[in-house]
Amino acid sequence: MAYSISLLIVRHDDLGLLSHIQYPEDLRKLPADRLPEVCDELRKDILDELSVNPGHLASSLGAVELTVALHYVYNTPEDRIVWDVGHQAYGHKILTGRKEAFCTNRKLHGIMPFPSPKESPYDTFVCGHASNSISAALGMAVAEKRLEKIAAEQGATGGNGKAAERKVVAVIGDGAMSGGLAFEGLNNVSATPNDILIILNDNNMSIDRSVGGMKQYLIGLNTNETYNALRFKLSKWLRSKGYLEDDRRKGLIRLGNALKSAFSHQQNIFEGLDIRYFGPFDGHNVMELVRILRQLKDMKGPKLLHLHTTKGKGYKPAEKAATVWHAPGKFDVGTGERLCDDEKGLPAKYQDVFGNTLLELAEANPNIVGVTPAMPTGCSMNIMMKSMPGRVFDVGIAEGHAVTFSAGMAKEGLQPFCNIYSAFAQRAYDNIIHDVAILGLPVVLCLDRAGLVGEDGPTHHGAFDMAALRPVPNLTIAAPMDEHELRRLMYTAQLPGKGPFVIRYPRGRGVLPDWHCQLTEIEVGTGRKLKDGDDVAVLTIGHIGNEAAKAIAEAEQEHPGLTVAHYDVRFLKPLDGQLLAEVGRRFSRIVTVEDGIRAGGMGTAVLEWMADNGLAPRIVRLGLPDSFVEHGTVPQLMHITGIDKDGIKKAITGICGYSKAQ
Amino acid sequence: MAYSISLLIVRHDDLGLLSHIQYPEDLRKLPADRLPEVCDELRKDILDELSVNPGHLASSLGAVELTVALHYVYNTPEDRIVWDVGHQAYGHKILTGRKEAFCTNRKLHGIMPFPSPKESPYDTFVCGHASNSISAALGMAVAEKRLEKIAAEQGATGGNGKAAERKVVAVIGDGAMSGGLAFEGLNNVSATPNDILIILNDNNMSIDRSVGGMKQYLIGLNTNETYNALRFKLSKWLRSKGYLEDDRRKGLIRLGNALKSAFSHQQNIFEGLDIRYFGPFDGHNVMELVRILRQLKDMKGPKLLHLHTTKGKGYKPAEKAATVWHAPGKFDVGTGERLCDDEKGLPAKYQDVFGNTLLELAEANPNIVGVTPAMPTGCSMNIMMKSMPGRVFDVGIAEGHAVTFSAGMAKEGLQPFCNIYSAFAQRAYDNIIHDVAILGLPVVLCLDRAGLVGEDGPTHHGAFDMAALRPVPNLTIAAPMDEHELRRLMYTAQLPGKGPFVIRYPRGRGVLPDWHCQLTEIEVGTGRKLKDGDDVAVLTIGHIGNEAAKAIAEAEQEHPGLTVAHYDVRFLKPLDGQLLAEVGRRFSRIVTVEDGIRAGGMGTAVLEWMADNGLAPRIVRLGLPDSFVEHGTVPQLMHITGIDKDGIKKAITGICGYSKAQ
Repeated sequence: MAYSISLLIVRHDDLGLLSHIQYPEDLRKLPADRLPEVCDELRKDILDELSVNPGHLASSLGAVELTVALHYVYNTPEDRIVWDVGHQAYGHKILTGRKEAFCTNRKLHGIMPFPSPKESPYDTFVCGHASNSISAALGMAVAEKRLEKIAAEQGATGGNGKAAERKVVAVIGDGAMSGGLAFEGLNNVSATPNDILIILNDNNMSIDRSVGGMKQYLIGLNTNETYNALRFKLSKWLRSKGYLEDDRRKGLIRLGNALKSAFSHQQNIFEGLDIRYFGPFDGHNVMELVRILRQLKDMKGPKLLHLHTTKGKGYKPAEKAATVWHAPGKFDVGTGERLCDDEKGLPAKYQDVFGNTLLELAEANPNIVGVTPAMPTGCSMNIMMKSMPGRVFDVGIAEGHAVTFSAGMAKEGLQPFCNIYSAFAQRAYDNIIHDVAILGLPVVLCLDRAGLVGEDGPTHHGAFDMAALRPVPNLTIAAPMDEHELRRLMYTAQLPGKGPFVIRYPRGRGVLPDWHCQLTEIEVGTGRKLKDGDDVAVLTIGHIGNEAAKAIAEAEQEHPGLTVAHYDVRFLKPLDGQLLAEVGRRFSRIVTVEDGIRAGGMGTAVLEWMADNGLAPRIVRLGLPDSFVEHGTVPQLMHITGIDKDGIKKAITGICGYSKAQ
Repeated sequence: MAYSISLLIVRHDDLGLLSHIQYPEDLRKLPADRLPEVCDELRKDILDELSVNPGHLASSLGAVELTVALHYVYNTPEDRIVWDVGHQAYGHKILTGRKEAFCTNRKLHGIMPFPSPKESPYDTFVCGHASNSISAALGMAVAEKRLEKIAAEQGATGGNGKAAERKVVAVIGDGAMSGGLAFEGLNNVSATPNDILIILNDNNMSIDRSVGGMKQYLIGLNTNETYNALRFKLSKWLRSKGYLEDDRRKGLIRLGNALKSAFSHQQNIFEGLDIRYFGPFDGHNVMELVRILRQLKDMKGPKLLHLHTTKGKGYKPAEKAATVWHAPGKFDVGTGERLCDDEKGLPAKYQDVFGNTLLELAEANPNIVGVTPAMPTGCSMNIMMKSMPGRVFDVGIAEGHAVTFSAGMAKEGLQPFCNIYSAFAQRAYDNIIHDVAILGLPVVLCLDRAGLVGEDGPTHHGAFDMAALRPVPNLTIAAPMDEHELRRLMYTAQLPGKGPFVIRYPRGRGVLPDWHCQLTEIEVGTGRKLKDGDDVAVLTIGHIGNEAAKAIAEAEQEHPGLTVAHYDVRFLKPLDGQLLAEVGRRFSRIVTVEDGIRAGGMGTAVLEWMADNGLAPRIVRLGLPDSFVEHGTVPQLMHITGIDKDGIKKAITGICGYSKAQ
């Protein structure tokens, strides 16, 4: 990777301590009392950079002290720190060899949006989707025990018989704790010997506010300094006497629980699960954090450290409105003014069209309810939430529950609209099949951020939804080409008798000057001919049809005589057999275009239909490749994957024999 | 449905009370003190029937008293009982209009293996996959509140303004409580007003023993009669004073928690999540259950009732060995002898070949570890578990965690074999994509029970794995045609540098007289020609290739002159381009056969490859249809879906123009 680093080097010269820290080993040379300075500089660095190069601000500001303390106390990268969702990890990047490169964060060929082992040995796991850190870290911690044992066995025949004792730490936000995967991890932590440390970075937020019983519970766990002090002394004493090792551990944890109950009259979920609990502590006191981590570092057995932090810490505007400042775009550091691109005259975002249309539909249909797994702001369901708070359910980061809960409501006669980001809906695949499709329950599943999402990269692209859902019986699957189509599909989906109805649409702006339109039904399973032509038929689904329209226009302009037909397939399932029969009989050349993975997607559906109906036109299928698409702007990634105007034009002219002339 | 009921009617005439109970309303006419008799008869009925018509015995025996008490106290089907996993619901079926039809249980066109709303209004939701009951029931309970409100609003303009207050009860086993979905449900129970009752049917088992912190925790919660009695009195008093309603509820729950702590010095996870906890009580005392349920029935707000039950209760052999008696096959009720089919000379089960081969590989490769989500017996990983207890991890019902935990171990250099039933692996779809495939981690994912599973029906068929996983980059996906291929694929998968490796194979027996063979590598991405021929090429993947071989032999025999080539594709991904090029160039007719869903599967992959490589043979794709396949024996279902010998033969002769002659 070639980074453009000149600008930042100048800036970093002005920073005191940070300019001497390239890697954590540099940090570890400092005396502990200099760490607050490091934190201040790190915070300033993040702020300055993000003000000009947008990214995830508030979470990373909240994790500054924790990040510094972790790299100070632990021997990274030999010790493993597993971040849960990379939002919080910008400080980590800056401290681990990516200070200069940080100005390329989230940019094409620049450093990746979320930590990745592909980029740095300090990044230990993939962390784009929430709640996976405990399971992954537990795997690493259990592996450490096994590898020690293998080394010991091999030591008998030559080695030294002892591998270094590697520490494993998972850092998980309270928002991610609502995810079932996090619980599955917690439930298994005590089942096998390991020395994992789970740090609960509790800011009472994920992107929006955290929700659910666990969140309420965490709020209830307030600091009890007497208890904490005593607990620490006790555990130190127990360890010094050798009581806190391996086999005897469990009995003593119970003792600790009883002690805790006696002192605090509180109930502790984590200790109920046989995980020693410490906290809550102030997550912004870096020297205190160092002291605590040093004590916990060599403690045997699984343990959880609960820290209270403030999302956006140290930057007043972000502290006050953490949701807005989760990923604020560019801003003026001094004034806190967010620098929005001039939005006048631009088409509306699909998200806003969704949010407003949902409210409009809900006003007319009392059975409609909304369900979102922690993304009311991101998907704009907050519009309905504000007007009808009792009819929108933010279930927290819990995609599986969001779908099954919706199915339960649909079973009783309500009409849920469940909105999930396409990539996160992968978490609900079985719920869609088992809890919705088998009974054909009328859940409207809106997959936001379908297709390429841009800077958030490979974990966030909505690449698999069409290929994964098309094989599922009883589903209707559609994608709107523009804002009016989205509105009409939403209207259609909530009409009686439609069954499970999936609507996928991309992140960002539509194409129309005015998104308002009358809500009229679209017949399920019908596509539409957008433009006639003779030489080749272009079949598209969803928003990318607009890119294809441009490509067609240019191709026809550049090649007089060439005429290209354009069909909007619209429904991936059921397919429009009449439209496909027309296409298959009239055209010997077809180009299909979609912004999902090629294998098994819309183009494949067309191929299957033609083969099943005895037709054999030549079909060129454009879509995402059989590899994970990296990060960059959406136009850049569309170009790279060959589904932008140029790529589509090339396919059109190529199949018509003009390619050599290009 | 036409049931053959003559046999059972005779038997039921001998039963006293049960012969007068067709529906719960009949049950509710009895005085409570007759219920123990009903339970005895019900238990006997289940035992007698299952001894000749195999099914899920032990769970249903353990739930007899609970089932009777629920239907006695609640106004079913108007009140909703949501069973989590239908294993426990045979008593429920017998009491809800299916007593005579019960002899058709799990049989083709007979009553369904798991409760389904398609069959009976008393069945409220789909319950094939564990852990979904809380989410679904919560949806129903929340819907009840919303529907009440709608009725009230409409009442203002004509209606009576008040719908009946429908009760919703979820019944979940402790085994299912380890699933993340159950936790996501629990976490959301207190977030919105509802009066749900969750019954935790705790027998310390799922199919095998329950595992994890939650299980340990539940064991620790022992009966404290003083507390329970006081708690009941207190809550009754509080309700009578109007303190336990709606808004004020939360404050009082906290009060209750403190009280509980004071009395028991125990920590309660459920009350930590703001769900009122009652128990544990004896789940086999039906009159006590009736008393408790009556008290809880009208209590406002969410609550959890913890019952201790014994899996296999009332039948000594099953009580002693509940795992064996989970689904024991036919047996002699009197002696407890299980009547096995004569197994001499039959090929081994793929499961046993998997289990023995895994142990063999693990003996040679110290990095190998095994991971199973609650199915050590079902998938035969118990063979390795017995020999190497420290190297096999049963993580409980937690498919997502099983995969991510495996990924964490793989990241550190271990070689996990993670075995999940194909249909349950749908729960881990995102974990496979996000936690394994993106980094290309060397997890060997063995998908047991791929393809049709028979009597367990639509929720359990492994229909979607190939279509869903094929689009995922970095995966290798293979299916063995016989036992030796399974062994060689397992050997190949654990060789260095292979990355994520999926091996799918069916439930049941292979085809070879001896499964032992040398473990040699199979080159990744290579298929094989099994038989040459000129008229048509049959391409198969996995075990169903044996069915195709029979079809080919018969077709050639019946049509002298017809010669059919047979290729075992073996690798769904990467495809064998050389083999496909040979097929595509030599043959103008291809038949593909797979036991997965047609849309997007192996046949489709061949279609895509041919189209992408400018070849256009005629391709007939056999596979599962675009509908959920019901239950029956595997041969029956293969016949119905057209993928048995006859169906394949018909496709072969059809594509060759012989079809009219048939």
